[in-house]
Amino acid sequence: MKTAIYPGTFDPVTKGHMDILTRATELFDEVIIAVAADSNKATLFTLQERINLLEEAVRDIERVKVRGFEGLTVEFARECGSKTIIRGLRVVGDFEYECRLALMNKKLAPDIETVFLMTNSQFSFISSSAIKWAVSLKGEISEFVLPHVEQALLEKYRHNL
Amino acid sequence: MKTAIYPGTFDPVTKGHMDILTRATELFDEVIIAVAADSNKATLFTLQERINLLEEAVRDIERVKVRGFEGLTVEFARECGSKTIIRGLRVVGDFEYECRLALMNKKLAPDIETVFLMTNSQFSFISSSAIKWAVSLKGEISEFVLPHVEQALLEKYRHNL
Amino acid sequence: MKTAIYPGTFDPVTKGHMDILTRATELFDEVIIAVAADSNKATLFTLQERINLLEEAVRDIERVKVRGFEGLTVEFARECGSKTIIRGLRVVGDFEYECRLALMNKKLAPDIETVFLMTNSQFSFISSSAIKWAVSLKGEISEFVLPHVEQALLEKYRHNL
Amino acid sequence: MKTAIYPGTFDPVTKGHMDILTRATELFDEVIIAVAADSNKATLFTLQERINLLEEAVRDIERVKVRGFEGLTVEFARECGSKTIIRGLRVVGDFEYECRLALMNKKLAPDIETVFLMTNSQFSFISSSAIKWAVSLKGEISEFVLPHVEQALLEKYRHNL
Amino acid sequence: MKTAIYPGTFDPVTKGHMDILTRATELFDEVIIAVAADSNKATLFTLQERINLLEEAVRDIERVKVRGFEGLTVEFARECGSKTIIRGLRVVGDFEYECRLALMNKKLAPDIETVFLMTNSQFSFISSSAIKWAVSLKGEISEFVLPHVEQALLEKYRHNL
Amino acid sequence: MKTAIYPGTFDPVTKGHMDILTRATELFDEVIIAVAADSNKATLFTLQERINLLEEAVRDIERVKVRGFEGLTVEFARECGSKTIIRGLRVVGDFEYECRLALMNKKLAPDIETVFLMTNSQFSFISSSAIKWAVSLKGEISEFVLPHVEQALLEKYRHNL
Repeated sequence: MKTAIYPGTFDPVTKGHMDILTRATELFDEVIIAVAADSNKATLFTLQERINLLEEAVRDIERVKVRGFEGLTVEFARECGSKTIIRGLRVVGDFEYECRLALMNKKLAPDIETVFLMTNSQFSFISSSAIKWAVSLKGEISEFVLPHVEQALLEKYRHNL
Repeated sequence: MKTAIYPGTFDPVTKGHMDILTRATELFDEVIIAVAADSNKATLFTLQERINLLEEAVRDIERVKVRGFEGLTVEFARECGSKTIIRGLRVVGDFEYECRLALMNKKLAPDIETVFLMTNSQFSFISSSAIKWAVSLKGEISEFVLPHVEQALLEKYRHNL
Repeated sequence: MKTAIYPGTFDPVTKGHMDILTRATELFDEVIIAVAADSNKATLFTLQERINLLEEAVRDIERVKVRGFEGLTVEFARECGSKTIIRGLRVVGDFEYECRLALMNKKLAPDIETVFLMTNSQFSFISSSAIKWAVSLKGEISEFVLPHVEQALLEKYRHNL
Repeated sequence: MKTAIYPGTFDPVTKGHMDILTRATELFDEVIIAVAADSNKATLFTLQERINLLEEAVRDIERVKVRGFEGLTVEFARECGSKTIIRGLRVVGDFEYECRLALMNKKLAPDIETVFLMTNSQFSFISSSAIKWAVSLKGEISEFVLPHVEQALLEKYRHNL
Repeated sequence: MKTAIYPGTFDPVTKGHMDILTRATELFDEVIIAVAADSNKATLFTLQERINLLEEAVRDIERVKVRGFEGLTVEFARECGSKTIIRGLRVVGDFEYECRLALMNKKLAPDIETVFLMTNSQFSFISSSAIKWAVSLKGEISEFVLPHVEQALLEKYRHNL
Repeated sequence: MKTAIYPGTFDPVTKGHMDILTRATELFDEVIIAVAADSNKATLFTLQERINLLEEAVRDIERVKVRGFEGLTVEFARECGSKTIIRGLRVVGDFEYECRLALMNKKLAPDIETVFLMTNSQFSFISSSAIKWAVSLKGEISEFVLPHVEQALLEKYRHNL
């Protein structure tokens, strides 16, 4: 059985993430969404909240698990018995970052492969950051996230603002 | 009458901004400089200071207004009765960011159009950030900003340092 | 009255071109589609054929004219009494080329301004070249071009192959 | 059984291609190297020669087949009963081209997925074109291609020059 | 005698920096490593620590000096009697930043030239930031930094975490 | 004595080339302009014509020689007793090509170093190709090339057209 991990911060999960995830399940027997506890920047949602939002989002998708992790992504892949990391590529803006990450991971763990899927062009300009920024300015975001995520964002900003 | 808004943080206004502004006034009957109150990062100048520096800068340019705003740029455009957002493009470094912004804005408000003008190559490497960095290191900046802006920057850093 | 020209080879016109054109008509009182006789590479359609396909495409759009031209684009803009060149930007692949062109044109004719509109993301990956390539390989192209253009392409390749 | 196709012109196969191929065989049960008969530019080697060089190159790699094809890559994938196209990404220079291709293919055949693997950084600057150029100038190419491919290149240029 | 300065934050020095440095010594009679006291972001190591790590790293390389500096890089170059700034370029991710910096420096000091060397592809994906991130996640970094730098990083994170 | 070669097709020499050349002479004791006989594309001027135009252009610049060459650039550098290749970088459009070339050359000849200088921003959008295109369309090019080169271009196009 081929297992892949799909790592990220997912702060929160977007329809762009869901697009990549759905396509990944066509390629692999099992996909583990790996939610990073550590992040370079402060997250809006706690690790547990991000996991909960994801679990709700993937409830009806088979062969998908959600798990939090600490430390190196490649180490977590090994723990899961997976040799594959899935990443979404968007046409604008993250290719070079993804390159550096993939090459660094290849160096840290030559046995782990990074596989890129191209984010559908209708989602290519959205990101968790852009969505948080939009909702903080009272923008309409229902096209970019699932309803329960929109709800969580609205509540979070009601409390924060 | 065709009105366009030219949004930004303008912290502070540079000769690059003035270049775009002057060219925008050739294309539109009225240009409203929209100074964002909210910003992803802390500003050096307060909103009122940034507005004042701009008003001084555009004093002799006809058909230009300066206004502060909060919230989404596209909402502010609608409030102004404008269907056009002007953005300057520099050959180095902000194309992908501008793409994402324009596509996100198009999604949030399909009736509002983003129009890009190419910053003159002699200004293509300057930005408010670079100028603040240069002045903080005691660099000469009179080529990049108007005299009253240079004055304000020098005073700000005299107080800050 | 503000007139803009929208120059290109249009070999043949695509739905991406039509997207830019429609948005340009919102910004200007008149748009002249300027079909370049000269091109760096051989065209599939003759100048007259390209003009005919465009005229059919814009038949129901007001305030749009189609004209062929030879020589520099900036010279043709002047002949038309226009001070504005419209170009579509796609998120992938032509930004640097467009930069060089705009800066060169600015140097050749400082009084003429290039205005960029962002191609809708659903058309961001199509181009006349890609469509010709697809049709030559018997691909389905009805989503990318108008019906009469598809017809013309199919006939052209029937003759060519 | 999951089958993927790895399409290209392979004019001729390089060690960069072999790197991608080896990694693809870890991910899929079977990989079909799909050698395009049609190409935008004239090839140095005939289709049959390119296939022969590849067959020699993959002789000792299990679960790999080499086949020539005409027409759209997505159509050939369907013929092979494959839902996956593999492409190698190099850090320099072909990301935008690959984006356009993947998005176009997605439009032409939504059921076919493009999967990208990152070319090892030691091969990131080589390409069939660069190798042909180097050998035409009498450069040493044994680091970039397998011995039998080097031999074929040397013979080809002996005849051509 | 031709002297060049090689400026940076060096927080801490990597094997990528050492690669550029070694090549710079082939081109110039003397190379002064200029360690910036000021940085846009907080450093992990103090200025003195960064200097010490560098001095240990270059102990056996002739014609190299290490010096800290404050203020503009171009001013420091002049103080050193140098007309040349050396910068390393990596294939991924910093070209546009380097362009802006070089053009800004050219404007601030037209007599000072920036010279770029291409970082060896095996180091093209590493940076001080990536290494700090990897070590914070308990990743193996001995391939990217000299042993005494690895030691210093491990100690720093033992204290910090 | 440190000698560098400055290779290219120079079809024909532009003011951008002259800018790089002048700055290179500040860095090296001698600069040899290496005019490639072989090129991927047909040249407008013959090798001898290109050499003649360059010799006229550098007549008053000391420590500069012009020489034609065939074969690999790195081999020609060795023949000249030079360990350095100079290349101009423009902010738009050739960085990735230059990367690939430099990395390939490093592989073919590890002892030869490529040194990049940044083309002045006022020349960043010009290239021999753009100038030939402009002159073929009867554009004014005196700002981009020296008078004797403009003369040669005008004559060439008078004969060609």
